[in-house]
Amino acid sequence: MIVILKQNPNESQVAHLKTWLEGKGITVHESVGDSHVILGLVGDTSKLDKDLISALDIVEDVKRVQEPYKNANRKFHAEDTVIHVGNTQIGGGTLTLMAGPCSIETEEQIIGVAKAVKAAGATILRGGAFKPRTSPYAFQGMGADGIELLKLAKKETGLPIITEIMEISQLTLFDDVDIIQVGTRNMQNFNLLRELGRQNKPVMLKRGMSATYEEWLMSAEYIMASGNEKIILCERGIRTFETHTRNTLDIAAIPVLKKLSHFPVIIDPSHATGKSALVESLSMAAVAGGADGIMIEVHNDPEHALCDGPQSIRPEQFAKISAKLCALHGFMKTMED
Amino acid sequence: MIVILKQNPNESQVAHLKTWLEGKGITVHESVGDSHVILGLVGDTSKLDKDLISALDIVEDVKRVQEPYKNANRKFHAEDTVIHVGNTQIGGGTLTLMAGPCSIETEEQIIGVAKAVKAAGATILRGGAFKPRTSPYAFQGMGADGIELLKLAKKETGLPIITEIMEISQLTLFDDVDIIQVGTRNMQNFNLLRELGRQNKPVMLKRGMSATYEEWLMSAEYIMASGNEKIILCERGIRTFETHTRNTLDIAAIPVLKKLSHFPVIIDPSHATGKSALVESLSMAAVAGGADGIMIEVHNDPEHALCDGPQSIRPEQFAKISAKLCALHGFMKTMED
Amino acid sequence: MIVILKQNPNESQVAHLKTWLEGKGITVHESVGDSHVILGLVGDTSKLDKDLISALDIVEDVKRVQEPYKNANRKFHAEDTVIHVGNTQIGGGTLTLMAGPCSIETEEQIIGVAKAVKAAGATILRGGAFKPRTSPYAFQGMGADGIELLKLAKKETGLPIITEIMEISQLTLFDDVDIIQVGTRNMQNFNLLRELGRQNKPVMLKRGMSATYEEWLMSAEYIMASGNEKIILCERGIRTFETHTRNTLDIAAIPVLKKLSHFPVIIDPSHATGKSALVESLSMAAVAGGADGIMIEVHNDPEHALCDGPQSIRPEQFAKISAKLCALHGFMKTMED
Amino acid sequence: MIVILKQNPNESQVAHLKTWLEGKGITVHESVGDSHVILGLVGDTSKLDKDLISALDIVEDVKRVQEPYKNANRKFHAEDTVIHVGNTQIGGGTLTLMAGPCSIETEEQIIGVAKAVKAAGATILRGGAFKPRTSPYAFQGMGADGIELLKLAKKETGLPIITEIMEISQLTLFDDVDIIQVGTRNMQNFNLLRELGRQNKPVMLKRGMSATYEEWLMSAEYIMASGNEKIILCERGIRTFETHTRNTLDIAAIPVLKKLSHFPVIIDPSHATGKSALVESLSMAAVAGGADGIMIEVHNDPEHALCDGPQSIRPEQFAKISAKLCALHGFMKTMED
Repeated sequence: MIVILKQNPNESQVAHLKTWLEGKGITVHESVGDSHVILGLVGDTSKLDKDLISALDIVEDVKRVQEPYKNANRKFHAEDTVIHVGNTQIGGGTLTLMAGPCSIETEEQIIGVAKAVKAAGATILRGGAFKPRTSPYAFQGMGADGIELLKLAKKETGLPIITEIMEISQLTLFDDVDIIQVGTRNMQNFNLLRELGRQNKPVMLKRGMSATYEEWLMSAEYIMASGNEKIILCERGIRTFETHTRNTLDIAAIPVLKKLSHFPVIIDPSHATGKSALVESLSMAAVAGGADGIMIEVHNDPEHALCDGPQSIRPEQFAKISAKLCALHGFMKTMED
Repeated sequence: MIVILKQNPNESQVAHLKTWLEGKGITVHESVGDSHVILGLVGDTSKLDKDLISALDIVEDVKRVQEPYKNANRKFHAEDTVIHVGNTQIGGGTLTLMAGPCSIETEEQIIGVAKAVKAAGATILRGGAFKPRTSPYAFQGMGADGIELLKLAKKETGLPIITEIMEISQLTLFDDVDIIQVGTRNMQNFNLLRELGRQNKPVMLKRGMSATYEEWLMSAEYIMASGNEKIILCERGIRTFETHTRNTLDIAAIPVLKKLSHFPVIIDPSHATGKSALVESLSMAAVAGGADGIMIEVHNDPEHALCDGPQSIRPEQFAKISAKLCALHGFMKTMED
Repeated sequence: MIVILKQNPNESQVAHLKTWLEGKGITVHESVGDSHVILGLVGDTSKLDKDLISALDIVEDVKRVQEPYKNANRKFHAEDTVIHVGNTQIGGGTLTLMAGPCSIETEEQIIGVAKAVKAAGATILRGGAFKPRTSPYAFQGMGADGIELLKLAKKETGLPIITEIMEISQLTLFDDVDIIQVGTRNMQNFNLLRELGRQNKPVMLKRGMSATYEEWLMSAEYIMASGNEKIILCERGIRTFETHTRNTLDIAAIPVLKKLSHFPVIIDPSHATGKSALVESLSMAAVAGGADGIMIEVHNDPEHALCDGPQSIRPEQFAKISAKLCALHGFMKTMED
Repeated sequence: MIVILKQNPNESQVAHLKTWLEGKGITVHESVGDSHVILGLVGDTSKLDKDLISALDIVEDVKRVQEPYKNANRKFHAEDTVIHVGNTQIGGGTLTLMAGPCSIETEEQIIGVAKAVKAAGATILRGGAFKPRTSPYAFQGMGADGIELLKLAKKETGLPIITEIMEISQLTLFDDVDIIQVGTRNMQNFNLLRELGRQNKPVMLKRGMSATYEEWLMSAEYIMASGNEKIILCERGIRTFETHTRNTLDIAAIPVLKKLSHFPVIIDPSHATGKSALVESLSMAAVAGGADGIMIEVHNDPEHALCDGPQSIRPEQFAKISAKLCALHGFMKTMED
């Protein structure tokens, strides 16, 4: 960490700062320039509070040299994190295919979709029980009943299940859920993250709508800081000025996150674009770009699909895409260095 | 609401949609163009789920003519909402000055600041007990103890108090808090909003970091939908590409929100810029632009202010700014039409 | 186009508007709702000026149903545009590989790189002669001399060449340049676009840093409106809040633009990320996502590369990536429906 | 400037870099940390090319301590720049009011508006002759004829005139124009900026739609670097996710730019919001926030105003706003420290 002091800083305040830093085990290197004095802080600066130091009257700017996340950092955790659920794994060279409806609606629907996506190659079943909706008047999901139906579908098919949590008090409902999803609006719900860190269960952390990689990894750090290392990152598109697609899929997140951190990276083309016609090409791009898996919305009853988003595709389309993704994943393995 | 159908849509699906809409009390006007059929929906469309309709195979696009919020809408609630707390009010022509430290630290600190800002003209005391921090290693606030100290300061000075809530389970601690603040990261924490709607207590709803006016007002609608009409909106800057300031204060939010909705609008220049040197000019701009009040961070011990942000100003600076703001507010009243 | 009138509009102004529209060959369908009157405009609305109509006192909002671009629109030009240069083509199922240095520096450098990238599979040589630089003190490129060296490299290798133009007066220098590149800062330099529309030479139009697809296609429409149909679109990343990468590559631009328009789409991973380590995986993603080609910065003298950006890769790395891209492109063809 | 080296950098490359820097008159301070070696560069680093240094294999990151602009920098040019045109001045405590139509249409129109805004207190007449339009089919302005009409209005009223230039070849038409405006899309048209630097005439430089303060000041630096110091900055709103207003007025630009640089700052609320109803409150906010002037679109013939944007106001509205702005400006002077 580098601290740039203002011109002609108060000497006793500078001394006070140095003493405070040294009390935290940091060595301070002072370097005097034409216009500014610069302090180079050497030691474990990941736990220093950058804002606290920036706040000082004598400080003009603070710049990090090291990343502020440590447990989530590839530099301190060289090997890939691999998550095991049911008979499958996420990361470690596997291609994970998560599929299922946006909202769980009926037993027939979820079991129908579950069987269809399993037959088509899906390895994990997704389905929404608690739905974050912009409008209080929109359907908010089936809630606890939805989770029960999802568990039935798991029993019926053997597929591990993933569904979204929206607040700490819902945790008791997630005992038989295999992976807990944290949605984009909760990426910085720090109380929820801290609590999920106390669970012994994989968490899939979706990127906040306008979050940077660093903020995203700091949220993963929150979960790890309370003890849970089973984290999956899911890029689901960020907000940009483009309105043709609902969000903009940041494909560079795949190689960047796999370099900065050690977590598996899943891509969600359904939410990233909001358009089913774009799901296939973005999924292919993601697999070629190195993603550990894809999460796709699949509905099974287009005639009555008043509750599925325009991003959902039908099981037969999913089967076709799934086959292509697996073929591409196999081909990519033949080209590894 | 206008529904634009795809070219050559399936006739029976169109009939199905019309029947469904009419069942919801909507009259459908059909207009046949060269390339597209357009359905004009007449009636109370605020409770229709735009996404559901967009999802249909036959639909190309859906455009709203009316706003999706109703209780929050000036069109259906012509008079200004005025919030009464203690001996003061927010809205209705009053200039509200909320002031206090970023974080509550000690009894001396909060009582010292409280007395100072009261003497300088503040009408409401702010102070952070639960602090949302990007890093799990940063100071997270004093929590329940902080609220106790804030209540002491209220007792000592008579100032009503406002502090931030981070999750539903903290609600019991807020009995003697006068205004509950919802922070930027919780603007779309829908479960929290719904619960706050059940309280009989004013809520100050900060704008999400990248939220649109419509999303913000939909979050106010969540609170109103469960019965609480005492809402204050607080613009605290939005994220843009500019990095010199922490956020970008959207000054147009003042006239726009006062036209679209009926709530008081408070401006927070401290968080909007992250720089104390900008607080005065942005506060003056906000008052001249029609804001109902300003929220300013004030700390009282710059020598040891390791816990105050660079956006905080000292009590004597606040006194000077406060005097100018009051004079300007008075001058503005002389120019009203 | 749909025109939503304000409540209780001035009748004579409405009549005036209708007459004006009918004079432009537009049929107007009026539909009276509870709160608003809506005019549906039928006919060729692509040449109506949306802003002009929005400006009227009686108009609340105007929404387009049809796209405002016509020549660039796939709906009116179903077949793919294929660009022929030298012995190669861009679009039509070919994988185009454009490669070369950021800036042309010396004869040895540009000829060395040209030979190396040709041997590695590049089909077009790129090189910067006029460089848009944020700082007036930064190297602005060799200018006319750079174009001369590029032409030497073309002679030596037979590769067609592409380089960027920055103002109309430079056009005379581009006689022997095969493709004229319009950079991100000039995407809305309308005078330049209009002039390029008068040339009989392919133009590669890079996306503006914060441009939407519609704005980008409107810029292509400018070129086509003056008669030049030989347009190539190049996605080079958009500005987002993420700072780890220089820009954010919008991979969805590939399938979206190929659906909305008929132009070939090239991806520039070098500028999109600013990091050479990300070039391979983003190039692979782009080819799997359906791109018609990739543009990659390659430099040949890392020891003295004070003038190449951190996004450049060396010829031997390019050769490896090029081989993978060609293999992937071949594999993708085997999976076409 | 601080250069952070990669771990275990090649020693001879480091030596090479140091020699190169010292050859440019820079002193290099080396500071060895736990994980990284940091070079502190002392001297005039404003002319160093940050990208060139970042590009080196041995460099992990480069951070500036000093701003990259020098002539535009308040630190090296303490006194305010004041621009004199006709009998008025911009900056130096004056409130400048620029007013006039979006587009010049007829002699009657521009002379009518000119007289009306002069009577209402405007000090400078604006009017568009060359109009940058997103669509090639939209009205592009009267061009040279428009400038002639504007000059007639200047003759008639004595008001200095400002109008926008779009390319270098138009410069000959600007002989009798008092201030040349550079529009948002040309803020980084570096060739145009360099040429304007060679003129002895004030230039009003509008902020690019997504530009940072630093990029904006670097564009001013381009103009100054070729010798022209008569620069006015105009904040006209930046692109954000908000769609209710056309752009988002960045009010903080006023105090920030006046601190970082020495130029007068003008606010354009008409383009910033695209809504005439917001012009008054944003103008008041701007004056209270310290702006040196306001630029407002005024049209005089609402009945036929098919060519004025929804942001235009009528002369009688302008007169009312102008009176309030002048009163507020006077009041603000009474409160200066």
